[in-house]
Amino acid sequence: MSRLTHLDEQGRATMVDVSDKAVTTREAVAAGRVRMLPQTLKLILEGGHKKGDVLAVARIAGIQAAKRTHELIPLCHPLMLTGVRVELTPNEADSCVDIEASCKVSGQTGVEMEALTAASVAALTLYDMCKAVDRGMVIEAVQLVEKQGGKSGHWRREDEQ
Amino acid sequence: MSRLTHLDEQGRATMVDVSDKAVTTREAVAAGRVRMLPQTLKLILEGGHKKGDVLAVARIAGIQAAKRTHELIPLCHPLMLTGVRVELTPNEADSCVDIEASCKVSGQTGVEMEALTAASVAALTLYDMCKAVDRGMVIEAVQLVEKQGGKSGHWRREDEQ
Amino acid sequence: MSRLTHLDEQGRATMVDVSDKAVTTREAVAAGRVRMLPQTLKLILEGGHKKGDVLAVARIAGIQAAKRTHELIPLCHPLMLTGVRVELTPNEADSCVDIEASCKVSGQTGVEMEALTAASVAALTLYDMCKAVDRGMVIEAVQLVEKQGGKSGHWRREDEQ
Amino acid sequence: MSRLTHLDEQGRATMVDVSDKAVTTREAVAAGRVRMLPQTLKLILEGGHKKGDVLAVARIAGIQAAKRTHELIPLCHPLMLTGVRVELTPNEADSCVDIEASCKVSGQTGVEMEALTAASVAALTLYDMCKAVDRGMVIEAVQLVEKQGGKSGHWRREDEQ
Amino acid sequence: MSRLTHLDEQGRATMVDVSDKAVTTREAVAAGRVRMLPQTLKLILEGGHKKGDVLAVARIAGIQAAKRTHELIPLCHPLMLTGVRVELTPNEADSCVDIEASCKVSGQTGVEMEALTAASVAALTLYDMCKAVDRGMVIEAVQLVEKQGGKSGHWRREDEQ
Amino acid sequence: MSRLTHLDEQGRATMVDVSDKAVTTREAVAAGRVRMLPQTLKLILEGGHKKGDVLAVARIAGIQAAKRTHELIPLCHPLMLTGVRVELTPNEADSCVDIEASCKVSGQTGVEMEALTAASVAALTLYDMCKAVDRGMVIEAVQLVEKQGGKSGHWRREDEQ
Repeated sequence: MSRLTHLDEQGRATMVDVSDKAVTTREAVAAGRVRMLPQTLKLILEGGHKKGDVLAVARIAGIQAAKRTHELIPLCHPLMLTGVRVELTPNEADSCVDIEASCKVSGQTGVEMEALTAASVAALTLYDMCKAVDRGMVIEAVQLVEKQGGKSGHWRREDEQ
Repeated sequence: MSRLTHLDEQGRATMVDVSDKAVTTREAVAAGRVRMLPQTLKLILEGGHKKGDVLAVARIAGIQAAKRTHELIPLCHPLMLTGVRVELTPNEADSCVDIEASCKVSGQTGVEMEALTAASVAALTLYDMCKAVDRGMVIEAVQLVEKQGGKSGHWRREDEQ
Repeated sequence: MSRLTHLDEQGRATMVDVSDKAVTTREAVAAGRVRMLPQTLKLILEGGHKKGDVLAVARIAGIQAAKRTHELIPLCHPLMLTGVRVELTPNEADSCVDIEASCKVSGQTGVEMEALTAASVAALTLYDMCKAVDRGMVIEAVQLVEKQGGKSGHWRREDEQ
Repeated sequence: MSRLTHLDEQGRATMVDVSDKAVTTREAVAAGRVRMLPQTLKLILEGGHKKGDVLAVARIAGIQAAKRTHELIPLCHPLMLTGVRVELTPNEADSCVDIEASCKVSGQTGVEMEALTAASVAALTLYDMCKAVDRGMVIEAVQLVEKQGGKSGHWRREDEQ
Repeated sequence: MSRLTHLDEQGRATMVDVSDKAVTTREAVAAGRVRMLPQTLKLILEGGHKKGDVLAVARIAGIQAAKRTHELIPLCHPLMLTGVRVELTPNEADSCVDIEASCKVSGQTGVEMEALTAASVAALTLYDMCKAVDRGMVIEAVQLVEKQGGKSGHWRREDEQ
Repeated sequence: MSRLTHLDEQGRATMVDVSDKAVTTREAVAAGRVRMLPQTLKLILEGGHKKGDVLAVARIAGIQAAKRTHELIPLCHPLMLTGVRVELTPNEADSCVDIEASCKVSGQTGVEMEALTAASVAALTLYDMCKAVDRGMVIEAVQLVEKQGGKSGHWRREDEQ
């Protein structure tokens, strides 16, 4: 049966040894969203039409967090991201902001955690900036959308379901 | 109408000046969960009965992240947490791990972001440790459960709904 | 004769012991500017009318750097900033962007270094975002403008000159 | 007309995707200086003849800051510096300390920001250590002196002027 | 029987809640030493008579590490050190460098870990700078020497033995 | 005579330029131990039989510290560790916990400092978690055990002695 790779034979946490893995181009896309009251989204949109600072701050926080993933997630390898993109799209139909983060690297480990961390921290930042008017916001559906590269190759959420 | 406190009159991001706020005891509880395949949860539980390292690593990562919240969330104030608690509870009924994080401080700003960040990073760490067997896991329902202290006083999610 | 406070009697670097200093409200304002080609400033201004992201990113970077001053400046004390404000003002007359950063704390040490660090990192970020079109930009006049609080009291640059 | 590379078509901040750039040897030299009162420089020089700790601390702070550039400058890529050198030269003629920082890497992005950050933080550290005797010091002329490697090739400030 | 304070009733790691502890002045002194070949010590001493940079770098690294203790030690509380002192004394009789670090704070938790971390990182830095000539150096006797303040009051190693 | 590589001709600290060094697979193993009272070790072992959290926390702290070595040790190069392993073994015969840390990288510099830092921080974390019951614990024998790769090739402590 499949074993958790981050535990050794005694069940102890280890940082997986990737020394012998091939250096390939790897890419991952993660998503998430922050559900909020319609009036909160309206405030963001109004600001957004003028200066967009709420979304800008969240976007930058997400990009920066991607670079620090290996500090936050104990068993992640450090790696040199070659590209990070974070997009926040106000979604009035569902009264939420949709977040999509993608990361790229040429390396020996994947960048799924970097993309997920970017999406999570962008969501948290959005929460921070709006919490004074809407404490009940919920971060939802933080998940991997797609990944490419590495031994396991291409994976896409929709193919699974 | 209510304005976003982290934007000034021109819509520019600012770090709210809390110099004149009272120092009070503040506490916040946040929750979240990682939904996964039943067999993934089974692997964690089996490990958990022996060494518990998956849950231990996630718990520690959450505690450490709480302390770095002000580095991750651009407009958060630095503060000196006096207590952080992160609990991860395997939930076989819903095929998920439930996460609850609580933070305490005696200071001029609340600790909602610290609790939410702890819950998020614990969830991300869980994802990291299990992703080799279950790439489709989803982080859900990251939200504030309760807060106390400060000018806005006591808030509880259930009272809202 | 006056001695450098950060060196002990043997000339060795020390972190000044502030244990016995009074906790007072302290504030500091620092300035700086990035001189650039007129066409570079024009590009920023055009962006600025629409989304303002160049100035927004620099502003956020400055705020975040203020919080990390004690990590960057070896003998600085950690402190809990209660407020940080960073303003960037395009100045067409002098073909530069003027930067002003102010920090507040209630503590035992001043916040001059935090304000100067915020101004410097905002300037560096501006350079980063425009360097592809204008490698020759110069960061100038990074200096303390005013400080208040603490034993040395009020100081203002203009009073000196 | 030339566009700012760190903004996408909508004017939003992005981290430039360098995945397809060639790995070349890159080097950058930046300069800066801290102008001060003659008696402040004299104190540094006296200390310098004995232990040199003021200049040593600033030199080390500059080296360390170069390594953290990607944490400070939001859209900078992480990279693995292969060499950093920071030199501080007391200049009695101009009553200042001249700073020169150079960084090297074998990678896909240049190291201009690393060299500029090293020079800036060395300057800030110098300010910190002398501020008790000379609050009016000014950090000036922080600028790129020369760069090599990458698609844009060799650039030298003096060739421009 | 005495229980480990950092484990809860289920043996899980927790960050001890210090919210109700009194704010008192706390101080801790830690020691350590790096044993090396006599010729390695001689090289340090020769450098030391001129510029002292080996000992200066180690001293600064120790001071900086003290400030980051809560990032390194998972269950340590963040705190605002009011003073850090690191001393390195070449000891020819025992062919080692003796290290002593002391930290002060006015807070709710002790600073033993900060002093021990400062001593350890100063020792590691010394190792780093001399490893090219003496790979066999050993870091020894890293231990608490004395502490004051807090509920447990004054403790001195020599009184114990 | 052999010179310290981290000092230039004037005795000033520098970060050694490794640009021209070959990229080779490098590995280092470091050791250390924490000596304690027999009853302290017993408490750890009892916890260890159930949840093992004391050793788990120390192991994770050691792994995380390895990744941050270049931030702690001023003249260390940043590098991308491909594997980190930290083992803590209770040793009842000597009333201590033995620590062994090993690091791997494919790069231009060795990973001795990373392994030594991992061992030191694991030891400090162990101290932190047990200090309430045994303040007199001592960290001992932190040393390099073996290294491979790079120009200097294979080195083993036992071969030296």
